[in-house]
Amino acid sequence: MSENQNPVQASANPRQAEYPIDPIYLERWSPRSYQGDKPVTDADLFGVLEAARWAPSANNGQPWRFIVARTPEDRAVFHGFINPSNLVWCQHAPVLLLLLSKTTFEANGHPNRKHAFDAGTAWGYLALEAARKGLSSHAMGGFDAEKAREALGISDDYEPQVVISLGYRGAIEQLPEGLQLREVPSPRKPLAETVIEGHFPNR
Amino acid sequence: MSENQNPVQASANPRQAEYPIDPIYLERWSPRSYQGDKPVTDADLFGVLEAARWAPSANNGQPWRFIVARTPEDRAVFHGFINPSNLVWCQHAPVLLLLLSKTTFEANGHPNRKHAFDAGTAWGYLALEAARKGLSSHAMGGFDAEKAREALGISDDYEPQVVISLGYRGAIEQLPEGLQLREVPSPRKPLAETVIEGHFPNR
Repeated sequence: MSENQNPVQASANPRQAEYPIDPIYLERWSPRSYQGDKPVTDADLFGVLEAARWAPSANNGQPWRFIVARTPEDRAVFHGFINPSNLVWCQHAPVLLLLLSKTTFEANGHPNRKHAFDAGTAWGYLALEAARKGLSSHAMGGFDAEKAREALGISDDYEPQVVISLGYRGAIEQLPEGLQLREVPSPRKPLAETVIEGHFPNR
Repeated sequence: MSENQNPVQASANPRQAEYPIDPIYLERWSPRSYQGDKPVTDADLFGVLEAARWAPSANNGQPWRFIVARTPEDRAVFHGFINPSNLVWCQHAPVLLLLLSKTTFEANGHPNRKHAFDAGTAWGYLALEAARKGLSSHAMGGFDAEKAREALGISDDYEPQVVISLGYRGAIEQLPEGLQLREVPSPRKPLAETVIEGHFPNR
């Protein structure tokens, strides 16, 4: 099972599973505090990207692409298109990734209706492996996709999906007060609200 | 790490990771053969849905919904909207799931631009936990979404994403010959083709 490298203590995690699952799904959440002075090792960075690599996708099209920013110069470019409300905390993340999806199949140029869905699957794989390696990861939709396109030279057949911050978790005290209150694993709806038997809706 | 319940033998799996990761990502693939006479236990079915429950999502909106078909009657309804090329094998799966995404936020009714992406993340979580529990899972885009809408009474604010077959892996011999050849874990592009440093494209 999980290697228990995640810095979240079980006692601090209010999440409860309704059915038995690997603990990694409960242990993995989206912190905002980072140790800004601790670079992500190559083994950890490429390890989480390796996990994403093996995600399933429509016709095995693998439409995900990751643009990595891990130098001060590359991160500064990313900071230019991330919303201020996210930048306030993710500016301290040692690695930022832009996850793009290719909107057409490489094999035949046809539109890939599942490009966003498949990119989301790859993000799920990445997020779980990050937790397993003791890394925090946090996906953000709050960025200016058009600015990102321009700043990074992204062509029309790719769609920016999320910016992902990656790094080792830092002290909660470095966050603004409002965000300190939100620095806990988030809850979920009960299964009964998202799982439906037979037809829709029957509750 | 993984509990090694997956029926795929390591020797039969041609996948090789470039960087060390939990073996579950390599062990998990999308078989087409099922033991049609072996129902999925409640613990396994709700266990994989439980894993999906904990996926991260934009504003924790949790836009995924799963419609479960596990009786002959409910499966017959699903068979009515699945493409023949998929039905030829997935008709034997003891469980079929339709994964929907809610296209608006419940909190304020605003459009959720990340509904498909987030549903993909939930599918990634589900797929990995299925493998951990010794279940095969296979997502299909090949179905008639409009027929599914009509047959299951799906309202306009939900979008059908994929049909997922779930069950215990069966003998390869029960598949049509053409599909027997495809009953192996699929390869992936090298990381160098999907990971880019700094800006896009630089290879």
